[in-house]
Amino acid sequence: MLKKLLVLFSFIFISACGADNVSDQQWRALELNNTVLLTLPHGKVVIELAPQFSPNHVERFSGLVKKSFYDGTKFYRVIDGFVAQAGPKDGSVKDKSVSTLAIEGQFLTGENEPFTQVQTNDLFAAKTGFKAGFALASDNNESAWLAHCPGVLAMARSNDENSASSHFYFVIGQAPRYLDKIMTIFGRVVYGMEHIQAIHRTSVIEGEYAVDSRDHTPIISMKLMADVPKKDRIIIEVENTESLEFAQRLVKRRARDNAFFYKKPPPVLDVCQVPIRSRLIRNDKI
Amino acid sequence: MLKKLLVLFSFIFISACGADNVSDQQWRALELNNTVLLTLPHGKVVIELAPQFSPNHVERFSGLVKKSFYDGTKFYRVIDGFVAQAGPKDGSVKDKSVSTLAIEGQFLTGENEPFTQVQTNDLFAAKTGFKAGFALASDNNESAWLAHCPGVLAMARSNDENSASSHFYFVIGQAPRYLDKIMTIFGRVVYGMEHIQAIHRTSVIEGEYAVDSRDHTPIISMKLMADVPKKDRIIIEVENTESLEFAQRLVKRRARDNAFFYKKPPPVLDVCQVPIRSRLIRNDKI
Repeated sequence: MLKKLLVLFSFIFISACGADNVSDQQWRALELNNTVLLTLPHGKVVIELAPQFSPNHVERFSGLVKKSFYDGTKFYRVIDGFVAQAGPKDGSVKDKSVSTLAIEGQFLTGENEPFTQVQTNDLFAAKTGFKAGFALASDNNESAWLAHCPGVLAMARSNDENSASSHFYFVIGQAPRYLDKIMTIFGRVVYGMEHIQAIHRTSVIEGEYAVDSRDHTPIISMKLMADVPKKDRIIIEVENTESLEFAQRLVKRRARDNAFFYKKPPPVLDVCQVPIRSRLIRNDKI
Repeated sequence: MLKKLLVLFSFIFISACGADNVSDQQWRALELNNTVLLTLPHGKVVIELAPQFSPNHVERFSGLVKKSFYDGTKFYRVIDGFVAQAGPKDGSVKDKSVSTLAIEGQFLTGENEPFTQVQTNDLFAAKTGFKAGFALASDNNESAWLAHCPGVLAMARSNDENSASSHFYFVIGQAPRYLDKIMTIFGRVVYGMEHIQAIHRTSVIEGEYAVDSRDHTPIISMKLMADVPKKDRIIIEVENTESLEFAQRLVKRRARDNAFFYKKPPPVLDVCQVPIRSRLIRNDKI
């Protein structure tokens, strides 16, 4: 058992410490220009954007947020166990005012390797891991992609791979990993996930018993945190997935070496079931 | 491609139709004595119990529900991405009034085979599938267990495997499959999952920044649906996972043979990401 643990530990240790981005900081502050405050009728949500993975989608989204584009739009497609999707009314002037974007579903690992490895031979990919707080997956050493874990923010599209414009969704249920690579993930919820999960479902089951659209959850406002008055900011730090502490936590989580686990589970980790912690640094107003 | 599809189809078809429990009914009505109506301050939730898998835990839970044992108790441990746990105040007279139960974490497949198979070589088990709407997993042909998918209801315990009594939890995030076999799952949410997911988190991160306990979400009431006045019942039907329609839906879901999937995902299914549909038959009061 001890030997197994040591092997696992070395594996993760090397994986994390081989990285030139390894850090002795357990926590990482979010950049105010890269963080969005979403105000819903029932609570506030903080989102971290991912320009290192999806620069064009982040630029698009940030630009629209800065113009208050989404304020007053509604979550018009909310399917239990799947996604909460929002955007302007289909076919409206507002909707048509935004051009389409080329998909950013994968990236060369050169720019984002090495990452903190979590698992090999996941059901959906050869490798999974973390980089900058985002869960990702890879099949080889050339390219990788962000994984559709609960709380990720991605751009919706129609059938054409390059048809995303302004409509977006949050994953609210079990990770729909079958969407990996073919959608552009560009952010994730770091605070207030319960408010995202509480968004009104738009039907009891998909396509049946549609809920009155007047009951769809509206977006009160979205702002870059940098544009929020100082007194109203929610300041969050997130766990640094490139830290030694995080690597050690992965080892412990895999081994489950405490008395509660009277029978040990398989020594595997679902990358979407490894919580990346957030902590609240300041929140004067809520 | 067509050949692949046919092979997949036959696989599932045989798997489902080999069962002596196969049905031509796409929907299944819930038994009123086996269904619980949970009223939270922000909404109503319907739970189906699983006496065929965990008879003693269902008997215990139903008995406590009938005595209004949980009414007024609170969700005192709610961790984002993990579980919402409730029960009487630890160490209180009420808490101590309930005896402990032997775990029902696994069952012999004899009684519950064949099941509708979903996947082989899942990250956590050799086989996964469904039976009576519940996701389950198995490593061999002798025993199986219910899988910790989002929405399942299970009994909490301390370190001793047979220490569960009355405290229970719902899974609110990505499936914590590492708890499979070592906890007793005895029900699942079939309606109102958004209200379960909206339960107030009790800390920003586990163990830090605890929320004032006065803000913990209380249980207004829990009743067996049979004990709810007829006019207040929420009548739900759930998809019959032993039906041919369901088997066909699995085939389609795996193949993703529509234009949206311009690149096909791996032909695999995460058993916890196969939605089991519910439909609302009657709900006069909400």
